[in-house]
Amino acid sequence: MTPPTATAERPAPTSAGLGIDDVARLLVTGPDRPGIVATIASTLRDLGANIVSLDQYSTDAVDGEIFQRTEFHVPGLTAAQPRIEAAIAEVVGGLGLQWTLTRAAVPKRVAILASTTDHCLLDLLWRERRGELNMETKMVIANHPELADQVREFGVPYFHVPIDRAEGDAGKAAAEARHLELLRGNVDLVILARYMQIISPTFLEQVGAPVINIHHSFLPAFVGAGPYRKAKERGVKLIGATAHYVTEELDEGPIIEQDVVRVDHSHDLRELMRKGADVERTVLSRAVRAHCEDRVLRHGNATVVLGSG
Amino acid sequence: MTPPTATAERPAPTSAGLGIDDVARLLVTGPDRPGIVATIASTLRDLGANIVSLDQYSTDAVDGEIFQRTEFHVPGLTAAQPRIEAAIAEVVGGLGLQWTLTRAAVPKRVAILASTTDHCLLDLLWRERRGELNMETKMVIANHPELADQVREFGVPYFHVPIDRAEGDAGKAAAEARHLELLRGNVDLVILARYMQIISPTFLEQVGAPVINIHHSFLPAFVGAGPYRKAKERGVKLIGATAHYVTEELDEGPIIEQDVVRVDHSHDLRELMRKGADVERTVLSRAVRAHCEDRVLRHGNATVVLGSG
Amino acid sequence: MTPPTATAERPAPTSAGLGIDDVARLLVTGPDRPGIVATIASTLRDLGANIVSLDQYSTDAVDGEIFQRTEFHVPGLTAAQPRIEAAIAEVVGGLGLQWTLTRAAVPKRVAILASTTDHCLLDLLWRERRGELNMETKMVIANHPELADQVREFGVPYFHVPIDRAEGDAGKAAAEARHLELLRGNVDLVILARYMQIISPTFLEQVGAPVINIHHSFLPAFVGAGPYRKAKERGVKLIGATAHYVTEELDEGPIIEQDVVRVDHSHDLRELMRKGADVERTVLSRAVRAHCEDRVLRHGNATVVLGSG
Amino acid sequence: MTPPTATAERPAPTSAGLGIDDVARLLVTGPDRPGIVATIASTLRDLGANIVSLDQYSTDAVDGEIFQRTEFHVPGLTAAQPRIEAAIAEVVGGLGLQWTLTRAAVPKRVAILASTTDHCLLDLLWRERRGELNMETKMVIANHPELADQVREFGVPYFHVPIDRAEGDAGKAAAEARHLELLRGNVDLVILARYMQIISPTFLEQVGAPVINIHHSFLPAFVGAGPYRKAKERGVKLIGATAHYVTEELDEGPIIEQDVVRVDHSHDLRELMRKGADVERTVLSRAVRAHCEDRVLRHGNATVVLGSG
Repeated sequence: MTPPTATAERPAPTSAGLGIDDVARLLVTGPDRPGIVATIASTLRDLGANIVSLDQYSTDAVDGEIFQRTEFHVPGLTAAQPRIEAAIAEVVGGLGLQWTLTRAAVPKRVAILASTTDHCLLDLLWRERRGELNMETKMVIANHPELADQVREFGVPYFHVPIDRAEGDAGKAAAEARHLELLRGNVDLVILARYMQIISPTFLEQVGAPVINIHHSFLPAFVGAGPYRKAKERGVKLIGATAHYVTEELDEGPIIEQDVVRVDHSHDLRELMRKGADVERTVLSRAVRAHCEDRVLRHGNATVVLGSG
Repeated sequence: MTPPTATAERPAPTSAGLGIDDVARLLVTGPDRPGIVATIASTLRDLGANIVSLDQYSTDAVDGEIFQRTEFHVPGLTAAQPRIEAAIAEVVGGLGLQWTLTRAAVPKRVAILASTTDHCLLDLLWRERRGELNMETKMVIANHPELADQVREFGVPYFHVPIDRAEGDAGKAAAEARHLELLRGNVDLVILARYMQIISPTFLEQVGAPVINIHHSFLPAFVGAGPYRKAKERGVKLIGATAHYVTEELDEGPIIEQDVVRVDHSHDLRELMRKGADVERTVLSRAVRAHCEDRVLRHGNATVVLGSG
Repeated sequence: MTPPTATAERPAPTSAGLGIDDVARLLVTGPDRPGIVATIASTLRDLGANIVSLDQYSTDAVDGEIFQRTEFHVPGLTAAQPRIEAAIAEVVGGLGLQWTLTRAAVPKRVAILASTTDHCLLDLLWRERRGELNMETKMVIANHPELADQVREFGVPYFHVPIDRAEGDAGKAAAEARHLELLRGNVDLVILARYMQIISPTFLEQVGAPVINIHHSFLPAFVGAGPYRKAKERGVKLIGATAHYVTEELDEGPIIEQDVVRVDHSHDLRELMRKGADVERTVLSRAVRAHCEDRVLRHGNATVVLGSG
Repeated sequence: MTPPTATAERPAPTSAGLGIDDVARLLVTGPDRPGIVATIASTLRDLGANIVSLDQYSTDAVDGEIFQRTEFHVPGLTAAQPRIEAAIAEVVGGLGLQWTLTRAAVPKRVAILASTTDHCLLDLLWRERRGELNMETKMVIANHPELADQVREFGVPYFHVPIDRAEGDAGKAAAEARHLELLRGNVDLVILARYMQIISPTFLEQVGAPVINIHHSFLPAFVGAGPYRKAKERGVKLIGATAHYVTEELDEGPIIEQDVVRVDHSHDLRELMRKGADVERTVLSRAVRAHCEDRVLRHGNATVVLGSG
């Protein structure tokens, strides 16, 4: 146990002094060339900004691609934002680079899709409540009713959108259409928290937000259904989980985070699933955290994850 | 995402076929000598039992101490228990060994002591609800009221026993007296889930159940209060957590489980505490799980943890 | 740095007192039934043996398969071995079980096959010299001459058996025939230490010893050639290695040990190979150690690894 | 095993195309203020340099300390170095910052001090030969003769400097004086590879190079001698190792790298030492690698380790 004075360990709120309201993040990608850092840094300095952190990765020293994340502090950010964006558009756009600017104080608006499994869903909601994730879950959508009470206790709306299996593909399409009505324009990120349905290309095209999935295996091992059963049959000594952006190719999207846990011959399927659930929720929450901190940049079918998690 | 057929991965209930009602666990410790395994195994066979698993550790090949855990299946265990205990008492006692017999189907009755921090407490209650821990939480006792609602949602009584700091030691003694009234005879295990109070020797003597604590450091590094602050100051590259049985010596009891997580210079105190919280709840739940499966035997001021977790 | 008294930490030789010469290991597999432990333990007791450790795993509580490893001490083992084997053959054979008996003091006779990569090969030789592996490397066979000097410094013969590529399959068959001449009857284990050749079914059939391979990926991800390149392309966040018994199916044999290491987007192919090499040598040495301690039992196309490594 | 085409995985030499000869590293520390990045980046651009990677850490967003490592490419670096250093001295010095400039192509000159234990020493020499460490070991100095042959096989001089224990402190001082004669001016880094002697403040003051030590515990647990014995007694479930810069305070210097490995009750002292040796050599080599890549900056009694290892 720990004596009472341990309460002295409680840290001061992050925003003390600085004001997270005034912190912005600039993501830049595109063809590398000499002088990019100097140009961007000078522009920010001239805008009155102080660079808090800067992470840069170039695929090659010459003729590579650049991935850069700059976090900077500028007093009165909200008012200054249009002016800043105009300056960046001119300078960074002028270098032929892609860019996005976000404000650290604005949480990502999130929808979570679930089925009947609770561990990933509840862990995200709990971490959000603790202030660990810079997001605001606007809704949970599930094709089953079981988790409604547990979700609503967190103050989050729960929409039950059943899939009419008797209708076959039409039932599935109808459910997706309902999803799109709920999601479009309302969220910045969709999270599949062990949502046991395949997402259609149409949905991905129309939803207007990135989709993160947690797959219950160490991809690319054991793609598709039943990975724990396959892992047991193959006799692996580690099982894992993979968080990735969803693309049209099943289980093939850009990987954001992975981890594994040791197992042995004595673990039956039930125990593999229990140990795997711990890895799944950890990996998914790390990936969501990185995404919500604007630390994940796509690079072809892979990701560049900048900064420390 | 995972296609619908993945539901085929759901395993059959453990008790199917076998009946966990008929599984018992025999723990044996004491001076080793030739023939112990043969004697115990023969006794069990003669009682109609089938050994499901047997783990044995001897400190030395000659003149060592033996630690043995045998899980066996015997039809009609409840009715047969007195007969089995009598036979074991005669045979195992005759060898000068200590022993305990438990029934796998009987969950440990547990009390959890907490303060205001929720992560360890909620994780235990959630794992119990999922069926991951062979325990039944009979009550949560806290010196603060904050977590009452969250605990009661799990159907568990929450007793708020404030400590009257104005009374000094007397206030603390009064609170412990109230704890003992609630606990004595009612629980098989007390868990300190980030309970920020020092436990008195009197309490330990009178509570009549083992007490497991989670300490927020990789003991014996950073004993006492404020371990994350100390870890930050010392510049360690890993932080950890330790679950141990509580003894009269603060932070010195037998260690059941430990783990660590990598950190770096960029993590401030708040982030160390966030990353540490994940290790704390993982380590505590593993220790509690091992204890509730009768896999932890004390060996002086250390533990022997048998079987696979 | 550590003060001089640290030399007090040097442990006494293992054999002090007990005599490893008198330790035997009995491996038993087959259909489980009640009474197996009692029967075996009683037999050993009647032979004057003391059980040092016993590990047992049953696939099911009823009608399962049993895997048991018993380490026991019996004075005058060498002389007593025929009598012990006769007793075990009668009792264990009578139960319809397979068994093998080995003497802990007898190291496995080993051949290592290599190409030009040194890390796995040198690590095994170095661990053997340190006394970490209960084996005696009788020869290294390589299809390249580069590592001859480094191997011979360890006092181990190095046979260079080039493969005549101009001869195609015939050249390969000729090399394998030469391997078999060197190996047959001379070794108990063949280790492929990054040996970059496919082994033929004929070789496996005729070599008369198990063959362990180290594959430079976390199988079953990235089977076949070029796993690091594939891992880089897929953008995985962990890379791994797998030690397995070689069977006729390429990269499909029973897995003995696996591990992984974290990588990120900034690691190029060269760095993946560097980090992977560390995992490869660790995983291979753990697998070889377990095999040489008779802790690995095959279970269909998987393994049961008993005891603690 | 892996089919022959796997040789296609061999990467092209790093220097192909770019020329590592033209890569420099600028380390900057000191009081943070707005505009530092812009000023340094502009200066480098004006010098014709292309920034390959830039890592920056500030202890606080306002009034903090800055730690920055910039790797840049400039054609004809060797000839240009005086001009570059003059420009940096003016600009960076003008900002009140400390700085150092190194050339990536120049390996650190290293001395390794050892006693009789081989695992850390041989691992470093082997990694250097493989090209994993940007260093050149100029000499090994040991107070015992045992490892001379193994070291000289790597083409490295081995100096045996025995300590005359009969002379007490004088004997120790005489040995250190001999060390200083060998080291001063000849090396950029001293590595204590399980060198079992306490280093005097005089030595540290006069040697003129940083000293890295590997301690065989997870500091600050088990400081001083006999950490494995202490770990066994305390019953920890993980053992570790710590690489740190040596300061006047024994085992208290800035930590560069740490790691742990899981152990259990069944591991005796010999096995703890075996498992610990693997962690020791891994941790030491990672620390040395980071140091030789100019990625380690001191921050009080801690370190800031920039970039990815």
